Amino acid sequence: MKIALGLTYDGAFFCGWQSQPSRCGVQDALESALAEIAQHEVRVHAAGRTDTGVHALGQVVHFETNTERPMTAWVRGVNAHLPASLRVYWACEVSEDFHARFSAFSRSYQYLLYNAPVASAVMANKSGWFHLPLDYASMQSAIRYLEGEHDFSAFRASECQAKSPVRTITDASIQAVGNYFIFSFTANAFLQHQVRNMIGALVYVGKGSHAPEYIKTLLEARDRTISPPTFSPNGLYLTGVRYDQKFALPELDLHALRILI
Amino acid sequence: MKIALGLTYDGAFFCGWQSQPSRCGVQDALESALAEIAQHEVRVHAAGRTDTGVHALGQVVHFETNTERPMTAWVRGVNAHLPASLRVYWACEVSEDFHARFSAFSRSYQYLLYNAPVASAVMANKSGWFHLPLDYASMQSAIRYLEGEHDFSAFRASECQAKSPVRTITDASIQAVGNYFIFSFTANAFLQHQVRNMIGALVYVGKGSHAPEYIKTLLEARDRTISPPTFSPNGLYLTGVRYDQKFALPELDLHALRILI
Repeated sequence: MKIALGLTYDGAFFCGWQSQPSRCGVQDALESALAEIAQHEVRVHAAGRTDTGVHALGQVVHFETNTERPMTAWVRGVNAHLPASLRVYWACEVSEDFHARFSAFSRSYQYLLYNAPVASAVMANKSGWFHLPLDYASMQSAIRYLEGEHDFSAFRASECQAKSPVRTITDASIQAVGNYFIFSFTANAFLQHQVRNMIGALVYVGKGSHAPEYIKTLLEARDRTISPPTFSPNGLYLTGVRYDQKFALPELDLHALRILI
Repeated sequence: MKIALGLTYDGAFFCGWQSQPSRCGVQDALESALAEIAQHEVRVHAAGRTDTGVHALGQVVHFETNTERPMTAWVRGVNAHLPASLRVYWACEVSEDFHARFSAFSRSYQYLLYNAPVASAVMANKSGWFHLPLDYASMQSAIRYLEGEHDFSAFRASECQAKSPVRTITDASIQAVGNYFIFSFTANAFLQHQVRNMIGALVYVGKGSHAPEYIKTLLEARDRTISPPTFSPNGLYLTGVRYDQKFALPELDLHALRILI
């Protein structure tokens, strides 16, 4: 039997998604808790393998088990064995052809950027921070260049293992709320550090170092070494993953970014 | 010379406002950092002595010093010696008759309550949580009974040292935003645990255990022992303190609690 779970976690309490010898990964905490309910070792597969410090509001994983439990046991029972910084918020049985990573046809990330002279104390681990004023309109013009199918080599970590640097961003937008900017991106998939690298470049435009067309120039140059530095992981949230309706997963976007300002 | 500071902190990283032998209080961290800039021991006085786990978005303090520094040194210089969970966001010289606690004529608190079957992982230390559905309309009716001058003995901690249980709440309101309720209270002053105790009672009304008039009954009974339990400190924020305009402190409400959807 294959079961899918919807997860949310605070990345500040883990060393990233992936299992580590020191057991500090989100995966380690989840597999231990699932093993308590399943009464056997469990291996989970995630839609997005988030980096250290990156949060999730809508991570999706799957695992296999022969243990029969009511679906509530895979939510409430598992949560009883998890730290408060990691919660399962839904569980449902899925067909054998479902794979949390390979069946996903899009991922959505949001980036929360606090823009004020003094950093936020309350949101220190939950937002990126930039101290100089950022121009909303020029960042809005700039972000449009990222939409569509592009070679994203300019925004790809040197250690990225993806076969192709080509990705399709179907949605890229910015919202200004109080002292925050929320950047939203949806794509078929993302390269390693892609969102944090795009934020780094958009901030360069926002602070006035470059015109919005700078993003186009970077895309065309396809050269990570001349692109602005990677922004902090603290403001990055995996907010949702989409699958074919045939898998009948619970509705998405229930956990889109809701933050203090 | 007397200097006032505007502060924000994440209460999860401290054992409350007050100085402790173990130096875990917000006051300890702030006094150590100020001493680095002043080059002498500094004693600070706060408008509100928040409990363990309680956050501040608009705490006001004052201290005395003979050391001449530009005001930016009392912000950026001090912040360089503070943990990321505590930030000074403004500093200004005030007249000798200013006292952060005794000159304040009102304090504002907000309470952030997450209302969903599964707790929030990302906001675990930054919100209270209640798992059963809460009725917005009946809580809105109930909260009106708290406005005005009342004997708040029903909502006062047994160890509260205030001389009188009478306080005047000038504003009490609730906002519903996504899965959150934000409760806002402004009063001349608050008794110990008063806000958390009022939230406990409002939640009893919201879950349907009592009609809104229950709040009136509790106020009239003036008996803490028959009132609902104290709610978690995690959702409580000191959002602002008001003083006479003659002190010319920076504008308030820049850091009030709001939520994004």
